[in-house]
Amino acid sequence: MLKRRDIVAIVLIVLPWTLLITVWHQSAIAPLLAIRKACHHLVKEIFIIPERLAVHHQQLSDDGVEGKREAGGQAQDSKEYCASDKDIVEVVRTEYVYTRPPPWSDVLPTIHIITPTYSRPVQKAELTRLANTFLHVPNLHWILVEDSQRRTSLVTRFLRETGLNYTHLNVETPKNYKARGNPRGTMQRNLALRWLRETFNANSSQAGIVYFADDDNAYSLELFEEMRSTQKVSVWPVAFAGGLRYESPKVNAAGKVYGWEVVFDPHRPFAIDMAGFAINLRVILFKPQAYFKLRGVKGGYQESSLLQGLVTLNDLEPKAANCTKILVWHIRTERPYLENEGKKGFSDPNMEV
Amino acid sequence: MLKRRDIVAIVLIVLPWTLLITVWHQSAIAPLLAIRKACHHLVKEIFIIPERLAVHHQQLSDDGVEGKREAGGQAQDSKEYCASDKDIVEVVRTEYVYTRPPPWSDVLPTIHIITPTYSRPVQKAELTRLANTFLHVPNLHWILVEDSQRRTSLVTRFLRETGLNYTHLNVETPKNYKARGNPRGTMQRNLALRWLRETFNANSSQAGIVYFADDDNAYSLELFEEMRSTQKVSVWPVAFAGGLRYESPKVNAAGKVYGWEVVFDPHRPFAIDMAGFAINLRVILFKPQAYFKLRGVKGGYQESSLLQGLVTLNDLEPKAANCTKILVWHIRTERPYLENEGKKGFSDPNMEV
Repeated sequence: MLKRRDIVAIVLIVLPWTLLITVWHQSAIAPLLAIRKACHHLVKEIFIIPERLAVHHQQLSDDGVEGKREAGGQAQDSKEYCASDKDIVEVVRTEYVYTRPPPWSDVLPTIHIITPTYSRPVQKAELTRLANTFLHVPNLHWILVEDSQRRTSLVTRFLRETGLNYTHLNVETPKNYKARGNPRGTMQRNLALRWLRETFNANSSQAGIVYFADDDNAYSLELFEEMRSTQKVSVWPVAFAGGLRYESPKVNAAGKVYGWEVVFDPHRPFAIDMAGFAINLRVILFKPQAYFKLRGVKGGYQESSLLQGLVTLNDLEPKAANCTKILVWHIRTERPYLENEGKKGFSDPNMEV
Repeated sequence: MLKRRDIVAIVLIVLPWTLLITVWHQSAIAPLLAIRKACHHLVKEIFIIPERLAVHHQQLSDDGVEGKREAGGQAQDSKEYCASDKDIVEVVRTEYVYTRPPPWSDVLPTIHIITPTYSRPVQKAELTRLANTFLHVPNLHWILVEDSQRRTSLVTRFLRETGLNYTHLNVETPKNYKARGNPRGTMQRNLALRWLRETFNANSSQAGIVYFADDDNAYSLELFEEMRSTQKVSVWPVAFAGGLRYESPKVNAAGKVYGWEVVFDPHRPFAIDMAGFAINLRVILFKPQAYFKLRGVKGGYQESSLLQGLVTLNDLEPKAANCTKILVWHIRTERPYLENEGKKGFSDPNMEV
């Protein structure tokens, strides 16, 4: 017969050893299994790095063919992030080892980037380069608006594959507007503003910033963190605008914008390049009549035509160390020379460039 | 007196409980403390995202003023990655919320990117855009070679702030080589090749790939994963090269390169653009005489002058789905119009653009 004391001793020995073995076993294997299970159906690519297991996955909204709107406001739901501390020296790669955008944060305002774009040989090159920058920015939502009768398959495919949160829109600029040398992208930017107003409620707590980013400029990653705290409209210098090394708002000792460091028409209400300001989403929602003017707007007055409807000079918030740093460059890409296309060895037109 | 059996029982009870409590205690608190301790003095920026604590840190090599070489081969040592599963709903930001490069992996070969660069108005814009792409690529080492008498402060500062692993070199092209319309960047690329040969041992197990990436092209992130498995020399199409939408190696049904889909001089030994191939580091180390030729090289023969010294056509490995995908675009940036500089409102020359 076992004594009561013996039974207690056995229990006290067996119980902790069982627990210990379970804990040890779990920490070695279970997280991997758990992650596999939890993420499997969503995983777009798996990248297991040595000494650390990190599974990033992302469910892209199935946008595209019929639906008019993608991700947008619901972007948070489509993001998850799994990681574990296990040491697993193995590389599993089901697709390419992309860096996907940083995990979505519930505390940071969303940056809605509005980019008009149009078909041309370098379009995909420019969009690729831009996406590589945007993939570093937390809580970025890209509203890409094509100047075309319908959304092209090139851009549709491209957006699906980037891993970014996006909304893909299109509107074609009528020929008579194109012909008169009107600024490009006006109708596309206006459509994006309308989309924001139809999608977000003025009284919602959804914090957002709106920025117009053309697809040929260069952007420092700092720029996006500078604009994220915009209360009304924030401003900063832009390199290579207005025939200068840079154009800039003039900022006084009190940190207030009082004018414009420009040569071209310094008396414009807002003598600032499209890349030189960001707007709080609330300001756009509370002033639903403000749009870029399509007619009767002189060159260089596009930006003023929108900003006059939203704020006054006094509302502007200088960023980039009181407008002393260049964080965005207004540049253009050369049209490539394709003089050998059409000659004997011309390239396959079905190859997407 | 305790019996021997009692002592065994006590040990069997006390030992596992102690272990259990230690394990439990550690997994709850210790990792966080360990991370804080280990990372504190190195932290460049902290970004705590809700529901997950992620501390990325990086020790940038203190390059620059005297030392001739930076990070390079020792890059692994300068990288760590700390993360924990703790749920901390808080955002701490000491600097900008950058995405730093992916954690360094011990199992992936290093990609050594050689980029010649020179002073011009758009230099920083181009380098910024390129760095934003490179920051997504695991195990990337950037060898940036300035065409200048000394390393400029603009590039030195820029590199320090990117967060990339880099080596910063310089060599000035003599005036008589510039004047004759010789191709740009030859001496710079050769200096980088010499640096690789002096830094890495031909018999070392250090796996590496070498790629020449000019600072004005556009690169898909897929390209870097394609080139990572290069055994000798891998090849792929390049958009906008040779006056075509794209130039490409010709690949037969067996997956062998047998010629060149080009219009300009298809009889060149390697009718391929600088952006169209990558080389295994071993090949470069085992053929120490192979350099880009500086004299007596016709236009379009630069690439051949190096590759002829390294491999034959038969050695080429087609990538990018047997050369059917465009993953790199050979484009140029327009020279910006600065016609208003020098007029009444010209910009501050001390402002770095």
